[in-house]
Amino acid sequence: MSEKSVTALSEDFSAWYNEVVVRAELVERGPVRGTMVIRPYGYRIWETIQADLDARIKAAGHGNVAFPSLIPQSYFQREAEHVEGFSPELAVVTHAGGKKLEEPLAVRPTSETVFGEYMARWIDSHRDLPLLLNQWANVVRWEMRPRLFLRTTEFLWQEGHTAHIDEADAMRETMWALDTYATVARDIAAMPVVPGEKTPGERFAGAVRTYTVEGMMRDGRALQAGTSHYLGTNFARAFEIQYQDEGGALQLAHTTSWGMSTRMIGGVIMTHGDDKGLVLPPRLAPYQVVIVPIGRNEAAERTTAAARALADELKAAGVRVHVDDNRPQLSPGFKFNDWEMRGVPVRLEIGPRDLEAEVVTLARRLPVDGVAGKEQIPLKRVAELLPGILDDFQAFLLRRAETFRDEHTADVDSWDAFTEQVAGGWARAFHCGRTECEDEIKNETAATPRCIPAEAPEESGQCVRCSQPSVYGRRVIFSRAY
Amino acid sequence: MSEKSVTALSEDFSAWYNEVVVRAELVERGPVRGTMVIRPYGYRIWETIQADLDARIKAAGHGNVAFPSLIPQSYFQREAEHVEGFSPELAVVTHAGGKKLEEPLAVRPTSETVFGEYMARWIDSHRDLPLLLNQWANVVRWEMRPRLFLRTTEFLWQEGHTAHIDEADAMRETMWALDTYATVARDIAAMPVVPGEKTPGERFAGAVRTYTVEGMMRDGRALQAGTSHYLGTNFARAFEIQYQDEGGALQLAHTTSWGMSTRMIGGVIMTHGDDKGLVLPPRLAPYQVVIVPIGRNEAAERTTAAARALADELKAAGVRVHVDDNRPQLSPGFKFNDWEMRGVPVRLEIGPRDLEAEVVTLARRLPVDGVAGKEQIPLKRVAELLPGILDDFQAFLLRRAETFRDEHTADVDSWDAFTEQVAGGWARAFHCGRTECEDEIKNETAATPRCIPAEAPEESGQCVRCSQPSVYGRRVIFSRAY
Repeated sequence: MSEKSVTALSEDFSAWYNEVVVRAELVERGPVRGTMVIRPYGYRIWETIQADLDARIKAAGHGNVAFPSLIPQSYFQREAEHVEGFSPELAVVTHAGGKKLEEPLAVRPTSETVFGEYMARWIDSHRDLPLLLNQWANVVRWEMRPRLFLRTTEFLWQEGHTAHIDEADAMRETMWALDTYATVARDIAAMPVVPGEKTPGERFAGAVRTYTVEGMMRDGRALQAGTSHYLGTNFARAFEIQYQDEGGALQLAHTTSWGMSTRMIGGVIMTHGDDKGLVLPPRLAPYQVVIVPIGRNEAAERTTAAARALADELKAAGVRVHVDDNRPQLSPGFKFNDWEMRGVPVRLEIGPRDLEAEVVTLARRLPVDGVAGKEQIPLKRVAELLPGILDDFQAFLLRRAETFRDEHTADVDSWDAFTEQVAGGWARAFHCGRTECEDEIKNETAATPRCIPAEAPEESGQCVRCSQPSVYGRRVIFSRAY
Repeated sequence: MSEKSVTALSEDFSAWYNEVVVRAELVERGPVRGTMVIRPYGYRIWETIQADLDARIKAAGHGNVAFPSLIPQSYFQREAEHVEGFSPELAVVTHAGGKKLEEPLAVRPTSETVFGEYMARWIDSHRDLPLLLNQWANVVRWEMRPRLFLRTTEFLWQEGHTAHIDEADAMRETMWALDTYATVARDIAAMPVVPGEKTPGERFAGAVRTYTVEGMMRDGRALQAGTSHYLGTNFARAFEIQYQDEGGALQLAHTTSWGMSTRMIGGVIMTHGDDKGLVLPPRLAPYQVVIVPIGRNEAAERTTAAARALADELKAAGVRVHVDDNRPQLSPGFKFNDWEMRGVPVRLEIGPRDLEAEVVTLARRLPVDGVAGKEQIPLKRVAELLPGILDDFQAFLLRRAETFRDEHTADVDSWDAFTEQVAGGWARAFHCGRTECEDEIKNETAATPRCIPAEAPEESGQCVRCSQPSVYGRRVIFSRAY
């Protein structure tokens, strides 16, 4: 419960974030450094993302599976780039059942290797392709600079792993996953993410191409909200994922992998929050509406009864509603602040005079399109009006985030303009494509290439840093990132 | 795909089980001894159990959470019995991020300790109780004699963890969980489990009372399908889970924990299977109905089109249906055997002559109540008739399993009758309550006390083994078990 207001977002974004995720009871630090405990209010957000994404994954023909979390360490050795990328982050089980193990086991940081091993067993013929698998799981990556939801030693995600007959089919899958992530982010989380390809220096360890959806947070930084990788035949070669083609010849399969994780919860918070705390999009909010009955003694009994009756009506209309009726020791003002801090989209207040007039006071978490958030509406019409009010609120959050992103993004063609722009937003700039040049940019500004946006116009120019010719055929988005 | 029939259940139950779970593509051995890879056909069964159980858990007011899988080893030391019970099974992370850890971390075998640590932080006042939490997670227990689904080094489960104001409220919760497990097993899995209390020798490490639901498998052995524990104040004392009562005095909370796991999938297989392979209850079956179009060339096109149209109609009626239309290289007979082995409740065959006569041939996986399983029904009426046919099949499986259980259960009052009975079923016998006596019974017959059944009549007598007076006020079920 909030006994004082949170640090203002506009004052100290980082302090605001760290306070608000804990105060809103979304999450807490775990017992081991860098781990987290996701509490019911936070987990409900994850379950909603999961339900939506899982339905899309299944509708596209993928089957869910469960692989073990402990992977023989030797599996990681088989793909050279993969082992280089993940070795520094592995947690290793050396003892089990009271004995030292013959071979140490890694707690999975991602599962390309073990999926590769089994795909090789399951695939014989071209008839077995495509093989479309997905897993909802926890993964462990030892993080040096952990941050709740955004970068934790253990997190939850889904990881898709698929095998295909050729590059064209694998690339279709890679782009399907990217497009699905963009849709989920936009439609459910109201995050207007930008899809695009990563530069070679930012690729997943072992991938031929890596794609990403990038969202802009309210401090102007970028958050990678989901990634999709075309792995070529790298893992197929390492794990012998082969099939007989129609002519009877052995061919290597082309594989993909793609993932979206609990860092999405952090992305939602940093896309929509404000000085008062969280602002949750209705489609993700555990409680879309909270009803606060007001009054003492006999009046409280009447308003509480009315609140509960209204809640039943709203539940029947498919609205996720909560009645704040078991904290009589707290004042209405305290409760209002508490639910605002926790980001509930709509609050309904029912006082004794409201009840006499057969109205409720409706307060949106934010004014929508400049119209003040608070209004009185007839009690009888609440269930009829609320779904539309929630839809409007959801649409408003997406528009607001789009406007914010566009206002904090600029094309820059000089190094001065670049450094100024990445201090508080995204710079769209030409780049030479050299990893050393990316590294210099990162060292001097902390900005990295976030993606080569899929929908950017085709353009060429000189690298914003070193003036060599640009290589990607379009501007690259650079930004500091989470 | 099945190229020869499986070992008959009646011939070698253990070989039958090991073959059928792999051949039906439910699961495979994982890369690390004792682990498993659950494939889409098996995972779909788990998802269905999960969806049903999760809805019940939420409806009863529990919030889902996600705790880290890595728990400081010292946490296990705090509850003396708990550490004794689980230490031999722990997998231990000693290195992470390229360094030796200061404190080794256990991969969770169960999470009472870490929930205890956080419950202590979240509970201040009696107003914070009950605290009702649940987690869907993977757990690791190093198994010496692993068996796919039944006893694996890693498995999936839900673990409920709750804290209450007193024993009465905690016991209500313990019994709620037990009753919920019995309902899920019975209504969804058609497993007529027997609920009851475990004897002291079979209690969960750290519990005051342990309750279980026990199912009978088709070889007469018992399977523990879910357990619910009243933990008293043991964990509250170890982790300082305390609250201020209404008078302002500090009190220890009373806690519970309860779990149901992927071993339920093994239970379903061993409750309903037969010589031909799996028999899946319709409410759990990934495919409730498979349609096999028959014919060559042009005839195949017509029957396949009819099969797909029928499938669309059935999907709209809420039936989970699959059309076997992408394996033209296989004969109808092969497909029939394959789907029988995989336990699909109802198969529909559409041949060219069926199509002309506007009928389909419907084949149940088993004759229901002695009526032959195969019949012709009008194509037009399939969607109308199928839900009832599936319900009847589900009800039949439960009745059949009840009959089997009752026929293989007997009251025994002599040691000779006991040893004979536990060779192939359950013995209901009086027991003295001494753990040494339980151990002797186990050493001589491999049978253990499965539970003191809640609904057994009150009776007393002499211990079936040592003739001392019985202590539980009723007969105890003894059986060999998985």
